[in-house]
Order: sequence, then structure tokens, then C-alpha cells
Amino acid sequence: MVDDNCPVENDSPKDRDSATSDSTCDKQVKRRDFIGGAIGAVCAGAVGAIAGAPAVHASGKFRWRMVTTWPPRFPIFQTGAEDFARKVKLMSGGRLSIDVFAGGELVPPLSVFDAVSSGTVQVGNGAAYYWAGKAPEAQFFTAIPFGLTAQQMNAWLYYGGGQKVWNDVYAPFNLVAFPIANSGVQMGGWFNKKIETMADLQGLKMRIPGLGGKVMNKAGVNVVLLPASELYTSLERGVLDALEWAGPYHDMKLGFYRAAKYYYYPGWHEPGSVIELIINSKAWNSLPKDLQAIVTAASTEANVRALAEFDSRNGEALEVLVDKYRVKLIKFPDEVLRGLHGLADETMTELVESNPKVKKVHDAFMAFSRKVEPWTKMSERAYMEAKGL
Amino acid sequence: MVDDNCPVENDSPKDRDSATSDSTCDKQVKRRDFIGGAIGAVCAGAVGAIAGAPAVHASGKFRWRMVTTWPPRFPIFQTGAEDFARKVKLMSGGRLSIDVFAGGELVPPLSVFDAVSSGTVQVGNGAAYYWAGKAPEAQFFTAIPFGLTAQQMNAWLYYGGGQKVWNDVYAPFNLVAFPIANSGVQMGGWFNKKIETMADLQGLKMRIPGLGGKVMNKAGVNVVLLPASELYTSLERGVLDALEWAGPYHDMKLGFYRAAKYYYYPGWHEPGSVIELIINSKAWNSLPKDLQAIVTAASTEANVRALAEFDSRNGEALEVLVDKYRVKLIKFPDEVLRGLHGLADETMTELVESNPKVKKVHDAFMAFSRKVEPWTKMSERAYMEAKGL
Repeated sequence: MVDDNCPVENDSPKDRDSATSDSTCDKQVKRRDFIGGAIGAVCAGAVGAIAGAPAVHASGKFRWRMVTTWPPRFPIFQTGAEDFARKVKLMSGGRLSIDVFAGGELVPPLSVFDAVSSGTVQVGNGAAYYWAGKAPEAQFFTAIPFGLTAQQMNAWLYYGGGQKVWNDVYAPFNLVAFPIANSGVQMGGWFNKKIETMADLQGLKMRIPGLGGKVMNKAGVNVVLLPASELYTSLERGVLDALEWAGPYHDMKLGFYRAAKYYYYPGWHEPGSVIELIINSKAWNSLPKDLQAIVTAASTEANVRALAEFDSRNGEALEVLVDKYRVKLIKFPDEVLRGLHGLADETMTELVESNPKVKKVHDAFMAFSRKVEPWTKMSERAYMEAKGL
Repeated sequence: MVDDNCPVENDSPKDRDSATSDSTCDKQVKRRDFIGGAIGAVCAGAVGAIAGAPAVHASGKFRWRMVTTWPPRFPIFQTGAEDFARKVKLMSGGRLSIDVFAGGELVPPLSVFDAVSSGTVQVGNGAAYYWAGKAPEAQFFTAIPFGLTAQQMNAWLYYGGGQKVWNDVYAPFNLVAFPIANSGVQMGGWFNKKIETMADLQGLKMRIPGLGGKVMNKAGVNVVLLPASELYTSLERGVLDALEWAGPYHDMKLGFYRAAKYYYYPGWHEPGSVIELIINSKAWNSLPKDLQAIVTAASTEANVRALAEFDSRNGEALEVLVDKYRVKLIKFPDEVLRGLHGLADETMTELVESNPKVKKVHDAFMAFSRKVEPWTKMSERAYMEAKGL
């Protein structure tokens, strides 16, 4: 199903032309290559073979295909997608059956959005900020530097009106979306140089994609885009001074602790990344209400279970990293966090001014943020601080 | 369905004899009376009329009854239970239909546990710490002073092994349990006296039930148990100096801001209370796998949606309390939080030493806590602090 000879997208000059596309690509490739070995890349030709495949209706039964942006067996995200499909099939007594294909197995990771939008397949699974090139306003539905946490995103999406804003953004693409996983707050990254002031960021060679990369670029960081397969070696050989990837559980598997001195926190650039389930709206509308309710409940269940798995596994991995591998954990100094926050605000202002669609989503996001933030400070944050006294 | 002439349980001398029973009762009564008006109380005789009612099986269809500890229309908890039942019915195409009865409508709130345990009804909805008199170890599955937050409890229950511990605790009672809602961190309470040192707690007359009450008692507080209907007046007239209830959304409805000067945070005594769905194990085992999966997914969906609603509504209510009602929000001083934490540890040590079943659950809870806590500090907590700089 996979082909090692296919080119990796972000090696192509075309992708190098666009920072957004580059970072999107980079992000996806990192996921695809994560497990190591023969995960392979992307054969655009494969799309042709399955183009226009409709949902299968036979005596009220539906057989759908889900394409994901993740490598086969990618922990939590890909395994969670498969678990979601199993549960939907079980709950529906087999009336809705979803075959899950990892990135590159049926369509390239970068083609997931288009494949679902066009109805080539019915379902996709990835992250909204991968489609920043098509819809920059979609980034608010994954994570924004210094934005909402997982719990706050759930509050916005499940109760505070965010779901409607999301569906409005995706309607022109014939898509409906649901949160299906969340990473929680990520780590700040692996560094071979101590970061004590904003000046220490000047000239640093770092791999950090997306909006976080744009913020770092403003800080004078030389943001480097490299295929995932080259990350470890680049860090070890000094081609990179730093990189960010995910959290302790995923990072430990890639062995970065052997190539970097310091592991910085917190992940100010991704405070709770939402993973999305996208469904072609024609396919969605063809489902009877009971199957729609099953898909909704199963995706919500997958969402909360993913965060639970992240918290558990990150906790375990952190223990091993510190006790066994003697990793030095360092909190970014307040001055640096303040500086990055200021640059993140600048980055956002520019993005908002450049695009009215971004402004619309930004305004809704910020209106909710202003309402929930004072409460979070007095509840979750104040409690965690009280407990730690 | 309700009877205003029935006595309120915690007015009876029998209940006054036992602190556990009293506080349990008080907690339930507060919920039942919440909406105000003719919610009424509990007629034990009503149980007889429905005793032994089995699940109805007819051509693969199940009709169940759920009894809750909440007043009719009690926001989020009771409305969430009803929403859960609607979704189960929808997802199952009507094969599993659950009729929901609020506290006192079919059985008294305090009888929910026994009614489900005995199979009188199939399903219950309440909080595990209400049953502390029967199983003190059950308290870990609601909230513990200075214990796990909502996100950490989800991590423990959905991934970290907590669900198995919970089911082991409830197995002798013929019950299986699922989380079905979570309050998040609550508020510390309404006070008419400033709390600047631990000494200020001496002799304070406060309504605070459960383990939080035991901790306050150790601090010299005169813990008062009163029916919910008397709380507002008692605070206004100085019979109480302080009380804790829930969070801004629920508290605002009761008007406490008119009777108290200061609103303290954070709610160290209830950092994320889990609301439980309990199912008679015989009824549960009689369900086919697809219906079991539907109940599991629907309860998980209800759980995350409840917290989302709390965060949204508490955020809105906080704004009104501060801007319109000029409520003074005060954080407990560090010295007081440290002092209460020490007394909470003492309280827990005594509880653990008094009961091997408590020790078993406590050890599992703490083992998970030690694993997740360092990660939470570096992720959620460090991020929230970074954002607030």
C-alpha cells in the first residue's frame, strides 16, 4: 500500500516557495515518518484510481472510507482513528462501516482535505492548520500560539459557539468537522543552546512549523524546514540548534534526548492541538439521524480518550526521560515568554489584517477567550498553583 | 410527582447523628432545592410501588428507568442526564429507552444507590461521595481535597486504570459506573469575614459538606449543616459566616452575592467533581455489545459536554457577578492554602488508616497522581502561567 520511492513533498521546490505550504508539509511528513521504516510517501496517481467513489448504500448500510494524515500505527492519532471506526461499526450494528487508510495508503496526507471535499472519500482525519494554505482561518480550529487550552477549546466547540463557526468555515469546501483528538499542551522543544534572553534566539537554527515558526522568525530565529527523517541527524550534527516536535511520549520514541541537551517547556505555540474528523457534507447529510448521533458521540468519546492517553503516557515518558536519560527540563524564562507572546500578537494582527475571513474567526475565538480566560485563571490555574505551594 | 409535605431528611434527628450522612444529605438537599419552589422532598413509601421492576425486554427492546439525585431541571446535571437518555434512544433507534426521574420523583435522592444496587431501577445518576456512608472509598471517584482536576480524573478513569478500580469498588454492590459529568474546579465559597491567616478560620460558622468540611473542622471552623432552603437567610442574618456551594453560574442563581461580601477562590476542596452514571450490573450484562457501546459513548459525550457548559457558563456568570453585582473576588492567601493542604493530608491519612478498602483506592489514586502531576505542572499549569505573564 505504501511506496518508498515516492518523493517527499517538502523536498520539492514548489513547496519551498510557500512558508505555509512548507510548514504544513513538514508537519505532515513528520507524522508520516514517525514510526520509522517503510512508511513511504505520497503517490498522487493513487487518487485517480478511487476518484468519485460514493458511499455504498445497500439495505440502509453505509460503507465509507477515511483517509488520514498519519503514518500507519501512529500512536493515539492513527490508533484513535481506527478505534473510532471500530466503535461506530459496533454501535451501528454494522450499518456504518468505515475503512481507515493511513497517510499515503490511499491518498497523500496533503490531499486528505481535497479528497473529502470532492467526495472522493467520505471521511478524513488530520489537523485544520494543515489546510492553512487553502483557508488560513482554519488554523484557529487546531491551535494558536498563546491561544486556548484543550479544556477551553472543548468549551468553545461543544458549548460556546465554536462548532458553528467551524462548520461555516468548512461549508464552502463541502465539509462538516468534529474534534476527534487533542494533544493537550505540548513541549517547547529540544535545544542545544540555553535560552536566557530573547537575544539568545537570534540566529538560532530551529525546526518549528506553522504560526509558531512565524513567531520564532520574528524573534530572529533561522526557521529551518527539513524532512522528518533528517531531524535527529541534523540536531546531532549541529545543522539544527533546536527543534520542536510534540510531547514527552512521542519525542522519546524519536530519541531526541540523545542529540539535545535541554528540553524546554511549556509549548506556548501549541497549547492544545485539536485533531479533526472531516466528513463530506453530502455523505453526512445522507446519514439518518441515528447514525449522525453515533458518529458525533464516537468522535467526542475519541476526543476525550485521546487527551486522557496523552496525559497518562506523557506522565510516564517524562519520568523515564528524567530518571533514566537524565534529560534537563528547563522552563523558558519569563522574559522570553513575554517576548514571544508579544511577537505572537504581532503575527496574529498581521494575519487578521491580511484576510477578512481570518478576522471573522479570530473575533469569535477572542470573544470566547475573553469570557473563559478569567474563569480559567480563578479555577484550573489558581487550583494548580494552590496545590503546588 | 413531588410532595411538598414530605420531610426533608437532614432535618431529622437520625441524620444529625452522623456527620457523613448529614453532609451527604445536605449536599443532596441543596441540589434538590436548587431551582426553588415546589421541588419537594422524599417519600420513602414511593419505593415500594416500583420495587423489583425488571428491565423490559420485548423483541430486543429495553426500557429502563434512571433515578437521579438532582432536582427537576437542575442545570447541567439533570438536564445533562435527560440529554444522555435522549441520545441513547436516538443512537439505538429506540431499542434502549431510558425514562429519567429527578430526585424524589420515584425514589429519594439518598436512595438512588440502593435502588440501582437492588435492581429496583436499572440506572442512577449522582455523585460517588454521596455514598461515603456505605463505601468511604467511593469518594475518590468524585473529588478529593487537593486531588485530581477534571482533566487528570479523565486521564485516570479513561486510560490510567481508574475505571477498573472504580468497578471493583462497586462490584459488591452489583453496579458498574461511568463518569457522566464534571464540574471542573469549583469556587472556595462566600465569606463575610476576610480570611488572611489560618487563625481567621477559628470559630467561623460555615456550611461546607464532605471531606472539605472535615478539613475545615480541623482548622477550627464550626461546620454547620443546614437545609439548602435556609442557606441564603442564614448567611444574611449571620447564622452562617460563610458557605460553599458550587461555581459562579449556580451560585449566582441562588443570590449569595446579596448576602456575602467576599467570594473566595480556588475550590481546593472540590477540584473537579465527577458525576456518575451507575448501572445495575445484571441490567448492564443483559445489554448486547452494541447497546453497551452506545451507553459508554453517550456517557463520555455527556461528560465532556458538561465541563464545556460549566466553563462557558461560569465564565459568563463571573463577568456579571463582577461587573453588575460588584462582587469582590479574593484568592485564599498562600499561607491558608498551605495550611488547608496540610490538614487535608492529615484527614486523608486518618481515613486511609481507618479502612483498608480506602487504602487500596487511595494507593491507586496516588500512584496515578504522582505520575501525572509533574506533567500537568510542565504542560497545563506552566502554559497558563506563561500566558498570564
